[in-house]
Amino acid sequence: MPDRTNRKIVLASRPEGAPQPGNFRLEASPAPLPREGEVLLRTLWLSLDPYMRGRMSAARSYAKPVEIGEPMVGGTVNEIVESRHPDFKPRDVVLGYVGWQEYAVANGAGLRKLDARRAPISTALGVLGMPGMTAYTGLLTIGQPKPDETVAVAAATGPVGSTVGQIAKIKGCRAVGIAGGKDKCRYLLDELGFDAAVDHRSKNFPDELREACPKGIDIYFENVGGAVWDAVFPLLNDFARIPVCGLIAQYNMTELPAGPDRTPQLFRQVLTKRLSIRGFIVWDFASQAETFERDVATWLKQGKIKYKEDVVEGLENAPQAFLGLLQGKNFGKLLVRVSQP
Amino acid sequence: MPDRTNRKIVLASRPEGAPQPGNFRLEASPAPLPREGEVLLRTLWLSLDPYMRGRMSAARSYAKPVEIGEPMVGGTVNEIVESRHPDFKPRDVVLGYVGWQEYAVANGAGLRKLDARRAPISTALGVLGMPGMTAYTGLLTIGQPKPDETVAVAAATGPVGSTVGQIAKIKGCRAVGIAGGKDKCRYLLDELGFDAAVDHRSKNFPDELREACPKGIDIYFENVGGAVWDAVFPLLNDFARIPVCGLIAQYNMTELPAGPDRTPQLFRQVLTKRLSIRGFIVWDFASQAETFERDVATWLKQGKIKYKEDVVEGLENAPQAFLGLLQGKNFGKLLVRVSQP
Repeated sequence: MPDRTNRKIVLASRPEGAPQPGNFRLEASPAPLPREGEVLLRTLWLSLDPYMRGRMSAARSYAKPVEIGEPMVGGTVNEIVESRHPDFKPRDVVLGYVGWQEYAVANGAGLRKLDARRAPISTALGVLGMPGMTAYTGLLTIGQPKPDETVAVAAATGPVGSTVGQIAKIKGCRAVGIAGGKDKCRYLLDELGFDAAVDHRSKNFPDELREACPKGIDIYFENVGGAVWDAVFPLLNDFARIPVCGLIAQYNMTELPAGPDRTPQLFRQVLTKRLSIRGFIVWDFASQAETFERDVATWLKQGKIKYKEDVVEGLENAPQAFLGLLQGKNFGKLLVRVSQP
Repeated sequence: MPDRTNRKIVLASRPEGAPQPGNFRLEASPAPLPREGEVLLRTLWLSLDPYMRGRMSAARSYAKPVEIGEPMVGGTVNEIVESRHPDFKPRDVVLGYVGWQEYAVANGAGLRKLDARRAPISTALGVLGMPGMTAYTGLLTIGQPKPDETVAVAAATGPVGSTVGQIAKIKGCRAVGIAGGKDKCRYLLDELGFDAAVDHRSKNFPDELREACPKGIDIYFENVGGAVWDAVFPLLNDFARIPVCGLIAQYNMTELPAGPDRTPQLFRQVLTKRLSIRGFIVWDFASQAETFERDVATWLKQGKIKYKEDVVEGLENAPQAFLGLLQGKNFGKLLVRVSQP
């Protein structure tokens, strides 16, 4: 049995505001050995996602924080290296959740075998995984899109936003994407078939968004917050639905913005326009996993949904890539290729 | 045919902030005469409701503002004085919407005959009318109460809040009422069977509310806003539902409160606790009218729902009573007895 070194990235300290490289530390230790009933996993792909910022903080949230000195958490695609578990054999590829490290042992619970012939294995972390299911469940279950309605989404070239917009098109809606920069906007229009794309870095962003939504906004899929929300808010139509799955613009906030307090105004509009604002986490809709996979796999085959990956090579580059993600520097689903199959 | 004088209260000017007596004017003019196909209505009861504050302003809302010089709008119970309409005869009693005046003509559209043997006619403006249906539809359709959940409601001795709490009890929930003053709190406990009652005028209101909700709040029926919302917000449980039907605390607000802006914090909790906040107007659920009437009439007969009326004598006293309503001075459903049957 070869001696294997497990490189991992642990949380070195909790960030105040925007994380810094020093909040992470690369460590190496001998890879663990699988016991009876366990498998040894090697990480092929690591998914980087905005929610990980939340896990770096000690604050209460919907999941436990990462402890100092522990590896950062994260979804992974893994290859079975050794198996002492009857259901898995070496070279099987599985969807796991082993975090920012090269090796891990697991008892099989929560591992799902992936079939590379069905779809590229990395899509299990993107369009066919948690981000895609976030888009699917939030848009369809909370958003309830109807033909000819206008659906707006920010971070629109990301794995959630791009899927939201494309499903909106499939449902007969007008899809308006909000993204940072001209390249991303062009991609939304030319490659993904959005009806309009608006650059939130533009000086006239609120006006441009208004022009892109001549009939207002019926569904705003909220994954950003901040200035984008401010521009969306006055455009919301009566009975608009706002699924809230993320607030990346505020994850690094250390204090509330200076006044005035606009919550009374928000509630006033909730009342007079009968808005519906609902937060969700994809696992709240776990029962929809099969429907999601069937539908999105079909749409992928039909070419109705496309996806884009932004691949970073090597685990050691994960922290820098993650800091970039929080600033919108990625273009497509951000993945770290930790090792080759 | 007798000469009849129609006294009415018109909107004299639009209020800035809290309305003043001078925003209203009592006028008298000859009562109109019904033409063929019309009826002449005499007002027995006028309902005073918080939403009327919205109609006094020119700001966009879910309904058109009252024009200056026009009678204030409002739900009424009317007696038919003269009928030139085949469906109505003199002395019939109907639910109408003729506003703050003694006489009006109508073509029959929107009039609904009331049967005094079924329930006191004034209840058509309260527990069996718009306020009761607001409570019923908002709590059941948006709130979706489940046994053992905690339901909190403010203005809890009012016609909406008292119905919300009592339906919550019928559905097996813990009902926590928030009201202004000891008498109202005692009424909630002793007469309506709420599990807890908290006085929002108490210095320790937030702490007392927390003690009244040992398992947090699963449904907050929002009809008040302001300081009550501030105390409720930290107590909301994961997956809490917040039907929003009114915001009486802010109707007189002329500017947003001084900062900081707490909308980011609100959205953060919406996300991490998966809150659902939804505004509604009772007419959005018009299709539930029959179910509402059947259920609430049954509960009234069974003694499971009680109601309280706060009756003001004479149309000329409507403005003062309405100003008091906006300050929580009424105790029970506020009604003006405009004339005797």
